[in-house]
Amino acid sequence: MKAEIISVGTELLLGQVINSDTAYVARELAALGFDIRYTCTVGDNSRRLAETLQNAFAHSDIVVTTGGLGPTDDDLTKQTCAAAAGRKLVCHEGTKQRLETYFKGREFGQSQMNQAMLPQGCTVFQNDHGTAPGCGFTTEDGKVLVMLPGPPRELLPMLQNYAVPYLSQWADGAISSTNIHAFGIGEGSAAEKISDLMQGANPTAATYALEDEMYVRVTAKAKTKEEAQALCKPLAAQVQQRLGDFVYGTDVASLEVVVVRELQKQGKMLATAESCTGGMLAERITDIAGASQVFHMGLVTYANEIKNMLLGVPQEILNTKGAVCPETAFAMAQGVRQKAGADFGIGITGVAGPKTSEGKPVGYILIALADGEHTYLRTMTGQGGRKDRDYLRHLAASNALDMLRRRLFGLPDIECTAFEKH
Amino acid sequence: MKAEIISVGTELLLGQVINSDTAYVARELAALGFDIRYTCTVGDNSRRLAETLQNAFAHSDIVVTTGGLGPTDDDLTKQTCAAAAGRKLVCHEGTKQRLETYFKGREFGQSQMNQAMLPQGCTVFQNDHGTAPGCGFTTEDGKVLVMLPGPPRELLPMLQNYAVPYLSQWADGAISSTNIHAFGIGEGSAAEKISDLMQGANPTAATYALEDEMYVRVTAKAKTKEEAQALCKPLAAQVQQRLGDFVYGTDVASLEVVVVRELQKQGKMLATAESCTGGMLAERITDIAGASQVFHMGLVTYANEIKNMLLGVPQEILNTKGAVCPETAFAMAQGVRQKAGADFGIGITGVAGPKTSEGKPVGYILIALADGEHTYLRTMTGQGGRKDRDYLRHLAASNALDMLRRRLFGLPDIECTAFEKH
Repeated sequence: MKAEIISVGTELLLGQVINSDTAYVARELAALGFDIRYTCTVGDNSRRLAETLQNAFAHSDIVVTTGGLGPTDDDLTKQTCAAAAGRKLVCHEGTKQRLETYFKGREFGQSQMNQAMLPQGCTVFQNDHGTAPGCGFTTEDGKVLVMLPGPPRELLPMLQNYAVPYLSQWADGAISSTNIHAFGIGEGSAAEKISDLMQGANPTAATYALEDEMYVRVTAKAKTKEEAQALCKPLAAQVQQRLGDFVYGTDVASLEVVVVRELQKQGKMLATAESCTGGMLAERITDIAGASQVFHMGLVTYANEIKNMLLGVPQEILNTKGAVCPETAFAMAQGVRQKAGADFGIGITGVAGPKTSEGKPVGYILIALADGEHTYLRTMTGQGGRKDRDYLRHLAASNALDMLRRRLFGLPDIECTAFEKH
Repeated sequence: MKAEIISVGTELLLGQVINSDTAYVARELAALGFDIRYTCTVGDNSRRLAETLQNAFAHSDIVVTTGGLGPTDDDLTKQTCAAAAGRKLVCHEGTKQRLETYFKGREFGQSQMNQAMLPQGCTVFQNDHGTAPGCGFTTEDGKVLVMLPGPPRELLPMLQNYAVPYLSQWADGAISSTNIHAFGIGEGSAAEKISDLMQGANPTAATYALEDEMYVRVTAKAKTKEEAQALCKPLAAQVQQRLGDFVYGTDVASLEVVVVRELQKQGKMLATAESCTGGMLAERITDIAGASQVFHMGLVTYANEIKNMLLGVPQEILNTKGAVCPETAFAMAQGVRQKAGADFGIGITGVAGPKTSEGKPVGYILIALADGEHTYLRTMTGQGGRKDRDYLRHLAASNALDMLRRRLFGLPDIECTAFEKH
């Protein structure tokens, strides 16, 4: 089955909002085995939406729209789609009752009421995080039309809980993908290592570069999800073997998830002391549910006197070598480890920009990891000339997480210098 | 002039990557006064791209493509577009030399060399953050075709520094927009307050909801950018006046920028103590260049013993009332203010989920602000049933920033309880 996605909204068309809905819907359609040829965005304009819809049905069997289901006058998707399919809008009693309860004690006018008007005979998708329901129906020509709301927090649960089960009746095959995530290796180098593995048609392997990491996606198509998964497995294993210990996980959400889960497993505690990253490392760790078991304390020590007062970084080092030197990073890692009574301490100091500091260039960042026996260092310099603050901070926090991952799994560090005994 | 954007890439089509390029390009095209009707995404498939291109030229005068300019075999945009426009690809000497320098000492093969092949007679856009150049040219029918690379870090500077100046020769009018940002008021309530102001055709006013704030965009179209700006001004002022002190800024990047700039102006220092937000507040503050002048110290005190040890939160409160109570929030704010010797201290404690804690529900978060004279409290509960961890953490940090903004500007707090003298 061929599928197409139409996003409706002038704010998307003018670039005021980045369109994430299309990606969310596309992933689910691909997982159901539908063949997506084309996605597009139109403004809140009934005539153009009708034209687009007509074109879409000329190419595709399934059309999913996002957006334009709200209560205001520029929300035209439902009326336009129903008219194009020759269906009347009728009041859906269940939705009407839900909305009356939802708006109890507040104003409930015609525009709210309009949200209960849905194409006759459609399957209604309940909105568990907002007011506008979605729906799906089959046209007289046997084409499938699904309408979903625009706000991602409404769209995502409706898509997964209602629209995917509805659409699965047309799924005649399935795609399965597995992602092998790596840190510390570029997309180009990774592609060289697996170039022969990237030649196949089913399963396929392809490389993708993210901000500061890369991943390889292995994808297979088969009759069932299980068969597709089984097809992926051996190729994914080969990719993982080639990329070696740069791989931090397969089908994992992030480096921080891998680190937090392993700390939990080993019953180890971490504490952090951050200067230029300003709390980003702590924030990424504590974003993982369950982090409180492995993380009790993080310090953001931006000023030198605070580094000395809270972490015991010797004033002499700060006076003679400055805040951005390996010795300060070591003292921060060791200091926060001791202060928290933790197994691991991480210290990060450096220049995230936009200006140089202490004569050190933007992008020069030192990351120390203390485990009670040794203190290890990773030094960031250069970064291919990239100097944007947010990127450098993110990269520094990722390097810290990767250093800890390598210690936890007993892997050699990259670009790492073992330092004095603690 | 009508304009259209075509994004090329199977990873976009399958939803593996969220398409931000289209939004970046759309904003610039709108600012040049071009009329965007339609944007679409196609996979790395030459035949479908050629069809899409043909359709686009049937509707539009200007077509901008993003993606598919890289060195690998699935990068087909340049070949396809050149063929569709009847242009040969020829070697661009300047680019060839740039690439040879770029790859000095590394492998430089045919695939790298292919990136110097560009449509004959085109205007070349230099890539300052990568290897693949972009370009623009006019077809025999007088249509304009511009090609830009896919990675946002390459696309954005090329778009702004090279493509916009190139495209501006066709701009016959200009759009100017101004955004009025508000925190603490919903999109619906804001729309009610300004409903009469939203009726005009030029300038227009429209409301937009973001994750935890909203903004009103006032847009005008005129012959020149300056005239358009002048048209916006009085309407923007009216909107701002109606929304009152919910407005935290006009055409500002974020709440944290407003707070950091005002702290700098007043020469005041801030310190933070975070529990459930885990460093997100510190991270957002230190993301602003210049934050080191106003922020010396942030603590992430996840465990109770750390709250007691570092901040002096009385053990008795922790034992009897727990970590999530107003008294703990107050003690955190006051403790971190004293410890840092700062003018303001912020303490955040609460339940970000996914599980309840101490019998308190997910979403119950307490935010305290101590200024040395008083300690103020904002309590978050409910949040419309939303329980996702990242949203709740972000909302808590935003509330803390908004509390501080209101103190700094001498505005009354919302939902705020003044507490005991410090």
